[in-house]
Amino acid sequence: MPEDRIEAGDEADVGVEADADALPAAAASRPRTPRERARAQTVADILRLGREHLALHGAAALSLRAVARDLGVVSSAVYRYVENREELLTLLLIDAYNELGDEVDAAVAAVPEADFGGRFAALGGAVRDWALREPSRYALLFGSPVPGYQAPAERTTGPGTRVITALIGILDGAFRAGRLAATGGRSPAVAAGLAGDLAKIRTEFGLAVPDDLLARGALAWTSLFGAVSFEVFGQYGAGTFTAREELFGHHLAVLADVAGLPPAGSAP
Amino acid sequence: MPEDRIEAGDEADVGVEADADALPAAAASRPRTPRERARAQTVADILRLGREHLALHGAAALSLRAVARDLGVVSSAVYRYVENREELLTLLLIDAYNELGDEVDAAVAAVPEADFGGRFAALGGAVRDWALREPSRYALLFGSPVPGYQAPAERTTGPGTRVITALIGILDGAFRAGRLAATGGRSPAVAAGLAGDLAKIRTEFGLAVPDDLLARGALAWTSLFGAVSFEVFGQYGAGTFTAREELFGHHLAVLADVAGLPPAGSAP
Repeated sequence: MPEDRIEAGDEADVGVEADADALPAAAASRPRTPRERARAQTVADILRLGREHLALHGAAALSLRAVARDLGVVSSAVYRYVENREELLTLLLIDAYNELGDEVDAAVAAVPEADFGGRFAALGGAVRDWALREPSRYALLFGSPVPGYQAPAERTTGPGTRVITALIGILDGAFRAGRLAATGGRSPAVAAGLAGDLAKIRTEFGLAVPDDLLARGALAWTSLFGAVSFEVFGQYGAGTFTAREELFGHHLAVLADVAGLPPAGSAP
Repeated sequence: MPEDRIEAGDEADVGVEADADALPAAAASRPRTPRERARAQTVADILRLGREHLALHGAAALSLRAVARDLGVVSSAVYRYVENREELLTLLLIDAYNELGDEVDAAVAAVPEADFGGRFAALGGAVRDWALREPSRYALLFGSPVPGYQAPAERTTGPGTRVITALIGILDGAFRAGRLAATGGRSPAVAAGLAGDLAKIRTEFGLAVPDDLLARGALAWTSLFGAVSFEVFGQYGAGTFTAREELFGHHLAVLADVAGLPPAGSAP
């Protein structure tokens, strides 16, 4: 066990050494010195315990003091690595968003680029698989907001938009390939305010997808998470839907259609 | 203030007088004696404080002891009315489900019965309005599960299925009137396990709606809550979608189409 993990912190030290970028830095580059390695290991231990506490107590009841206790150090020692409870929540958010993002990217990349429907199905399946495996971390990302906590947008927006960015990439790729078209009988009118929002999004992401299809893409996005949340949060009730993978598969196929995507496996 | 609200409870009394059905009974019939009225008033006060604590601390951090403190009584006195934290959560669930159910029913009933698309839009709008007005109670119902708490199905299933029951009523009414048909280009196959679930649901609710349309109805249901949850839980991010009512209106129109419903206002 690295020395400074069990060092009792000085109260005057609280927060002084806390490094807000500890996690991303650790992920981006290997720590070089023994001290850096020890620090990265301690932050990783705190995160592991944070994930366990998340599952046991929920995000709203997360306590850095309790994490310190499980780590076997006084809380002032933990504050050297993670400044406060908000910082622990932020690190857990970034960690979970990136794990989800990595799995979604890998699932999408495993399907040929021209199979737009197949890539959408892979994306949806990866979200569901991760959520079922990591229900409390999924709840942290997509469940009830934690009272009093506001995620720092400048640090969480990047990781937090990886799934929608992947989805937008599929939709825009399909549109540019001439393979995105809503097959439904009608397309609701897009009101002026919504059209303004969509124009801004199109510019920001460099998209070609027109209004109605972009709004449908947003619906496919929120609907995907709606279906996953209902399953993971136990909304279906015991015994109502037992064939949940089949239900989700049906939903994904309808949602691909809603978004204007061709069926999975129909690459030209 | 009724006498027994400020009576310090005897520890030996804990739970003895707790009445699991206090809330439904109070709602169903007016309390007759002064003592019954006082009791109903105290339970109502506990619920009001519970709702405030829900907003301040979140469901996972809800504490009956803290509610007692705000009520100005020792916790043993509160236990006479609400047995424990789980019971408080259950009462808050039932209370919120019923308020949501009442508002949805009223919104649906205000639209002519033959305007199936209009009734669906009214249902969706009522869910969103209530959720935006009561975000922490919405989070209790549709957000992260509360670790360690299991809602007692025999008491919460009734109130908890009012929205889906209203939605199923609209879909089945439309089908029986010959006005429910998926207009999408394709209907995904319904796998055997899912077909079994749907057959059971059809029997349980006395429905005529066939498999694909019933699965689409389930998708419209989870998607409606997916869209509301994204808005209420702050998933859209600041500035991305500013015309949220218009976005939701577009989503509802597409979802009506997904479910096979005619557009709002198109009653024959």
